[in-house]
Amino acid sequence: MSESDSWYIERFELSGSAIGFRVNRKLHEEQSTFQKIEIYETTDWGNLMALDGCIMLTGRDNFLYHEMMSHPVLFTHSNPKRVVVIGGGDCGTLREVLRHREVESAVQVEIDERVTRVSEQFFPELCESNDDPRAQLLFDDGIAYMRNAAAESIDVVIVDSTDPVGPAEGLFNESFYQSCLRALRPGGILVQQSESPLAQVSLIRQMRQLMRQVGFSAVRTLPFPQPAYPTGWWSCTMARKGADLSGFRERGAHSKPFPTRYYSADIHRAALVLPEFVREALGD
Amino acid sequence: MSESDSWYIERFELSGSAIGFRVNRKLHEEQSTFQKIEIYETTDWGNLMALDGCIMLTGRDNFLYHEMMSHPVLFTHSNPKRVVVIGGGDCGTLREVLRHREVESAVQVEIDERVTRVSEQFFPELCESNDDPRAQLLFDDGIAYMRNAAAESIDVVIVDSTDPVGPAEGLFNESFYQSCLRALRPGGILVQQSESPLAQVSLIRQMRQLMRQVGFSAVRTLPFPQPAYPTGWWSCTMARKGADLSGFRERGAHSKPFPTRYYSADIHRAALVLPEFVREALGD
Repeated sequence: MSESDSWYIERFELSGSAIGFRVNRKLHEEQSTFQKIEIYETTDWGNLMALDGCIMLTGRDNFLYHEMMSHPVLFTHSNPKRVVVIGGGDCGTLREVLRHREVESAVQVEIDERVTRVSEQFFPELCESNDDPRAQLLFDDGIAYMRNAAAESIDVVIVDSTDPVGPAEGLFNESFYQSCLRALRPGGILVQQSESPLAQVSLIRQMRQLMRQVGFSAVRTLPFPQPAYPTGWWSCTMARKGADLSGFRERGAHSKPFPTRYYSADIHRAALVLPEFVREALGD
Repeated sequence: MSESDSWYIERFELSGSAIGFRVNRKLHEEQSTFQKIEIYETTDWGNLMALDGCIMLTGRDNFLYHEMMSHPVLFTHSNPKRVVVIGGGDCGTLREVLRHREVESAVQVEIDERVTRVSEQFFPELCESNDDPRAQLLFDDGIAYMRNAAAESIDVVIVDSTDPVGPAEGLFNESFYQSCLRALRPGGILVQQSESPLAQVSLIRQMRQLMRQVGFSAVRTLPFPQPAYPTGWWSCTMARKGADLSGFRERGAHSKPFPTRYYSADIHRAALVLPEFVREALGD
């Protein structure tokens, strides 16, 4: 390593582990109403966004997260027409959701409009579907949005948030899960980013317990790689209203009319397999 | 993060990405004939070993790597009796190999005896099978060992080495693969750690081309999570002599008489699925 190299390193207190990327320069920095937003140009990973010092995405590896936050849940639901994304301000999840033709409406509820505006500038590829007539971008509190949503009006809720501290804390509790359950139609599915299976398995266990406690019928956790997040290994957890989570529309996934870079029907099936220690820790 | 925290950060030039862990203190440092060996006590990940500034393992996450370097290959071979581990000085792979009752002989050929001696002190759990009468620990050049091995004398060769620069460079070329092919019995399998599927897919492609070029009949790459290595996502690549790699002994894996923390028959099957972009890059 050359001593003159610059690196952006995130030291993640909770897991005692750090992740970082070599950078050429800082492209942008601002303090929004909610958080400090920084954009760096990396040497090998495209642009990088950090919120309050936590790396949110790089141009090169975000496809892993965005595909796994959207396609498994949408190919599990039998006919996902109305989708709500809570958070997701970089618009990458929204873009993947809109690839599904069955989706008639996709509402993104991001609390910080600046995250989306900055993404439009530095990650234009993620925002390329923002003008889709089925998309609606709201800049509002996702917790309140779900609390006020009409009962049984939504097929899929995707919680694409930061870690469960600060602004996102209220997205990981009983009251929020109750709102989601009420707003989902029968057979509807909530999917939420659920941190690292290795470093935070106790958080995943707690999320799943709360989801079951409020009345979801089934829960399922899918691990996937994500180099930009602590430990490089991440997960999403699904909870379903009034139906199980044992299968998915394999034929639909096999013949999907859009390209993906990580997701496939086979990868979906593989992601449903939990490593032994995770299975044991979650009591699956 | 407290400003007084200490972190051991590996900045990996090749991928432009960094990995690190919070540490309490350095437990050991020495310059062996081959490399600088450092041991740190981390706050959350047990002890950590670094060789020439590259993190080799932590006490908490090495099971991922060691299990995936040993059990998939041993449950793919129909009757693995003679196993050779090239490198693997921390003895974690050897321990996993010896869990298989069919294995009659496991020879570990590590070039740097100090790595093993230091592991005995700081990772005693990995070395607990070193006294197994089936185990033989040699401290020698693995390239020469394979060159001089009797033809058709080995069932499985496991290359558990550092990155393909410096001492390990000669483990990634045509001449080494030729030696392995010659030394393997028909149906024998070479498995080698093959770096990050995201950051170094071109290296994996090159390895596979060389393996095929020297005469291996089939190659297969299995990805797995590994937080202590750059990008947190790693892989091993198998090459087989005179037989295909389409299946494995699923029944044997299901009923294995020893515990594992990551590996299972289901995880094995899942690891055989390549993400779309890897499949395309490798022409699979």
